[in-house]
Amino acid sequence: MTYCVGMALKDGLMFMSDTRTNAGVDNISTYRKMVIWEVPGQLCLTLLSSGNLATTQAVISQLEERGKAHDDRNPDLLSAPSMFQAARIVAETLHEVVAAHETGGMKADSAFHATLILGGQIAGGPPRLFLIYPEGNFIETTEDSPFFQIGETKYGKPILVRAYDKDLSFEQAMRLLLVSFDSTMKANLGVAPPFDYHFYAADGLSRGRSGRIQGDDPYFNHISEAWGQALKDALRSLPEYSEG
Amino acid sequence: MTYCVGMALKDGLMFMSDTRTNAGVDNISTYRKMVIWEVPGQLCLTLLSSGNLATTQAVISQLEERGKAHDDRNPDLLSAPSMFQAARIVAETLHEVVAAHETGGMKADSAFHATLILGGQIAGGPPRLFLIYPEGNFIETTEDSPFFQIGETKYGKPILVRAYDKDLSFEQAMRLLLVSFDSTMKANLGVAPPFDYHFYAADGLSRGRSGRIQGDDPYFNHISEAWGQALKDALRSLPEYSEG
Repeated sequence: MTYCVGMALKDGLMFMSDTRTNAGVDNISTYRKMVIWEVPGQLCLTLLSSGNLATTQAVISQLEERGKAHDDRNPDLLSAPSMFQAARIVAETLHEVVAAHETGGMKADSAFHATLILGGQIAGGPPRLFLIYPEGNFIETTEDSPFFQIGETKYGKPILVRAYDKDLSFEQAMRLLLVSFDSTMKANLGVAPPFDYHFYAADGLSRGRSGRIQGDDPYFNHISEAWGQALKDALRSLPEYSEG
Repeated sequence: MTYCVGMALKDGLMFMSDTRTNAGVDNISTYRKMVIWEVPGQLCLTLLSSGNLATTQAVISQLEERGKAHDDRNPDLLSAPSMFQAARIVAETLHEVVAAHETGGMKADSAFHATLILGGQIAGGPPRLFLIYPEGNFIETTEDSPFFQIGETKYGKPILVRAYDKDLSFEQAMRLLLVSFDSTMKANLGVAPPFDYHFYAADGLSRGRSGRIQGDDPYFNHISEAWGQALKDALRSLPEYSEG
């Protein structure tokens, strides 16, 4: 399992991803699920991945190789003229990789599928955020749906739905996402720290604040403990049931 | 989909169930998923059901018919000498119904499965609460796992995990469950009010406080609105992110 969130904010795009991969609970590993590509002044792209690790690694490798030897049929991601074209390149690469595995005599009931979040900005256009499906199509955030989750999305969704606000600062978005990730990792062993984050500041056209929150990070541990108490207090602040 | 919760408390057993059944989002109905059997002074049992509606209705009908014409092979649920035996009777009936449908030439990938929560008390024993699987086996609550959820369990779980306390009163348990149900119905169209509830008071050996919360219930609506604000306030009460 996996948990990744990409969020469109007024000031930019916020990304967070966990690092656990597993094939059964007795076979777990730590892999980075966030890739950041930047050409300072030109573009900055962030890709989050969920699903089959071989698929997502192949997609990333193919995208990077094409950067060196690209042609008309295989355009270079870092030369994409717009975020829409960048999303198309990533989506087509994902679809090709999934299709190649599935038709290679190894039909394993969607086992090769992966879902991606791609966000960023290319000079001349605004920051944009996409959710890319294994079928090779994709959707974009809107005012009504300003964030995407992939992987184990359910446990961490209620707090995102209630507390998301496009005016969140980086520090507030980190707080919200760490609470959402904490709820998820408490309920699903397939989601675990360290958590990678990246805040792309709008019009920066270069990597913004990014880093990794370890499981023993003092701020994260404080949030995790304090959130349990804050939730209990919030519940107690509501009136008890009474008929009529 | 469905959402049902059974909860073991110091003062008794608390049950709540939604009433939505659906075959696709374009085909929804309202069905009661809670059955209460009582023989005052002798026993009181509550059954919550999730899964194939034909299966759960067949299980309930068979259990009730056996009450009229039972023999050694088909013991009467209401004559069960203990809660463990009652759980066995329900589990065996469930397993038979599922197996009969699956071997009747209609193998539809677990489509006939159902999962049940059975709780109550039989004179001479304590209140007990069981989760019954379609395979016909079952587990019981313990101090570490004092409640069961069936159906769409993920959205409503974080608040249950954080705020459950065995000392909750009926009024407090209603508040907690309605928050958990509200989070679930906001995220999954397959879960919807009215919600049925039953609080079995320990050693009462008869039906306790029970009723139905409609979607326009004033208390429920107040809780639903106030919870969104309380969650935002709880999040704001935590410190914003700062490195180091």
